[in-house]
Amino acid sequence: MNDMISPFAPDGFPKLPPLRGFTMATAEAGVKYRGRTDLWVLRGEPGTEVAGVYTQNRCPGAPVDWSRAALTVASNGPRLVVVNSGTANVFSGQAGRDAVVATAQGAAAAFGGNAEAIQIASTGVIGVALEAEKLVDQFGGMATRMTPDGWEAAARAIMTTDTYPKGATAQAKIDGVPVTINGIAKGSGMIAPDMATMLAYVATDATLDQPVLQHLLNDLVGPTFNSVTVDSDTSTSDTLLFLASGAADHAPVSQADDPRLADFCRALRAVMFDLSQQIVRDGEGISKLVTIRVSGAVSDGSAYRVAKSVADSPLVKTAIAGEDANWGRIVMAVGKAGEPAERDSLSIHIGPHCLASQGQPDADYVEEMGATYMKEAEIEIAIDLGLGGGAATVYTCDLTHRYIDINADYRS
Amino acid sequence: MNDMISPFAPDGFPKLPPLRGFTMATAEAGVKYRGRTDLWVLRGEPGTEVAGVYTQNRCPGAPVDWSRAALTVASNGPRLVVVNSGTANVFSGQAGRDAVVATAQGAAAAFGGNAEAIQIASTGVIGVALEAEKLVDQFGGMATRMTPDGWEAAARAIMTTDTYPKGATAQAKIDGVPVTINGIAKGSGMIAPDMATMLAYVATDATLDQPVLQHLLNDLVGPTFNSVTVDSDTSTSDTLLFLASGAADHAPVSQADDPRLADFCRALRAVMFDLSQQIVRDGEGISKLVTIRVSGAVSDGSAYRVAKSVADSPLVKTAIAGEDANWGRIVMAVGKAGEPAERDSLSIHIGPHCLASQGQPDADYVEEMGATYMKEAEIEIAIDLGLGGGAATVYTCDLTHRYIDINADYRS
Repeated sequence: MNDMISPFAPDGFPKLPPLRGFTMATAEAGVKYRGRTDLWVLRGEPGTEVAGVYTQNRCPGAPVDWSRAALTVASNGPRLVVVNSGTANVFSGQAGRDAVVATAQGAAAAFGGNAEAIQIASTGVIGVALEAEKLVDQFGGMATRMTPDGWEAAARAIMTTDTYPKGATAQAKIDGVPVTINGIAKGSGMIAPDMATMLAYVATDATLDQPVLQHLLNDLVGPTFNSVTVDSDTSTSDTLLFLASGAADHAPVSQADDPRLADFCRALRAVMFDLSQQIVRDGEGISKLVTIRVSGAVSDGSAYRVAKSVADSPLVKTAIAGEDANWGRIVMAVGKAGEPAERDSLSIHIGPHCLASQGQPDADYVEEMGATYMKEAEIEIAIDLGLGGGAATVYTCDLTHRYIDINADYRS
Repeated sequence: MNDMISPFAPDGFPKLPPLRGFTMATAEAGVKYRGRTDLWVLRGEPGTEVAGVYTQNRCPGAPVDWSRAALTVASNGPRLVVVNSGTANVFSGQAGRDAVVATAQGAAAAFGGNAEAIQIASTGVIGVALEAEKLVDQFGGMATRMTPDGWEAAARAIMTTDTYPKGATAQAKIDGVPVTINGIAKGSGMIAPDMATMLAYVATDATLDQPVLQHLLNDLVGPTFNSVTVDSDTSTSDTLLFLASGAADHAPVSQADDPRLADFCRALRAVMFDLSQQIVRDGEGISKLVTIRVSGAVSDGSAYRVAKSVADSPLVKTAIAGEDANWGRIVMAVGKAGEPAERDSLSIHIGPHCLASQGQPDADYVEEMGATYMKEAEIEIAIDLGLGGGAATVYTCDLTHRYIDINADYRS
């Protein structure tokens, strides 16, 4: 996969505590990789609720089709999630669809519950059907090893071009009862989520009705996973799941606007934001972490589209890689977004420096200010359109030689 | 600016014959570059008509604002075009606007006609105001050197990161009277024209009313300049002008659908297509020339947007640079376009090979076929969506280390 760790990797994997109501196991199924795990099964005790968002790509994989349908199926036993790396099982025809069915049936037989309710995800190369028997052969042994303590192992098993495993955890209280939220994610390239990101799993022991889960997920995916972009390419396998075991000892929550959820929402957003940041910090070939803040737009949606246009511009990304405070390219990328923008009301800051405002370079700005700032590892670009109250923030990385090395040489 | 000539450069600059009704000169104004020309003045005899299309970027340069207005101003003398390279005079505030006015006034004084009718264009770095006096100082000398024979010199004077000058010519007959069409263009990066390309000038000695000129230009810009993309970034300075001196000896044409224009339209399209191809063939860092043909879409517009999505995908472009027939990434890029597409009715060819159809890899395809084909310098990808009769073709290049070298190191 990738022998160079991102310079933005965290110091280590955070300590994710066991979560009441969930057990899991990983295995070396040998789908494609050798000498590493590539299969993860998560088992939520009976009563576990699940919500999900999936890729908006029009050519989704067979596992996405299956899992979208499974979201609506009640489970008569545990709630299972099965994830493999090594193949995405996308555009793999009838063989791919058959593999999903065989995987679900094998998992139901080994872990209980009905096959139709199982969430299945595959990540890796597109166009190669999953060999389901490699997974099914592992399920019996995995069923004997299920543990509540395997989050880091799980995060490692679902990696592809990732250079580090991604996890986050937070505590919150509902009705004074402490609950925990754990999450893991994978993703490094083909990252421009249009609903969710490559693969992310967030679980809690809180007791929440399914519509509440889905509502929270829909609300929070915008400022978290949908606000990161590595290369503007939207994966065919994006999946974000949110599971709740209901093991915590508080009265069930059945309304998304229940005031008892305030602290929980804060914690959930923190976990989702942390995971989405870890994905962009592992962006393929990253040498600079870039935050694009747009304000003064006619609406939040307009601000978001302008921020995405800047974040995805190859000329902006290569200038940042070259430590060039090339705000002319930022002007270009604002203007090409097709959103309302007025050259003469636009202002641009890079870090603490005002580079341009009112349609011209700032009188106090000298190139040395930008040149010094651009040597920083983390770059912040603030764009005010001067038109209204709309704002958005998008997180991205630069475009480097290493991105080309990874993607011209590796069949992912 | 660029010491490595594109491998897709033509053998030499074509022979552009003198064009009745037009004279021109170039000069070393020293705007930014040293030891080369950077200024071109084209003079159309009184009676010359002009049509233009300009960038759709919402942050256009002062010269674009000026020239868009100048298009509606009748000239009381010759029709002038003034172009400099070295600065784009974009986002340069009042100083930039003043420079355009000073340039126009200086040109009118030296070459005749009214300043307000002059077409002015600047290309180069964004955010630096043009020093108009550098241009104006040259106009007197240039007025003494005007010649009908300077097309190649003109093409050289307007280059920035281009690795070769771009020109094309064609002959046609109107009413049996021979007429000539000459064109020059520049552009290599920041190429995703949304109306025109960086800078292109097409001129003829035919006798055409201005509305006819504009109609022909609007009709033909779609399948030519608007169908090439290097890096998905739309310039703030894109300008395409079409001038007609009326020196040819046929009865004037005042309707765009006049059947006498059939042969002329063919020739005009050929010139515009040739120039747009020369731009993509000089795409920054190009190692492969790529044609994306989409058919079976619900409309031509939908086919165009799918083709652009594939052509602009960093993962598709890096795979091509790596000579990897990675059709999975093509499926991804089709799906992310947001246009109607059905995974199971999609088929993909690379050159003569069918890679995938009906939602799965083609049974007869083996990886060696694609691996051999991808070593070619010119790659053709054909995508049939299987939904309707819409079709479009987009031309692009791959994404290489050299693109990053050029754009991380050069302030353009």
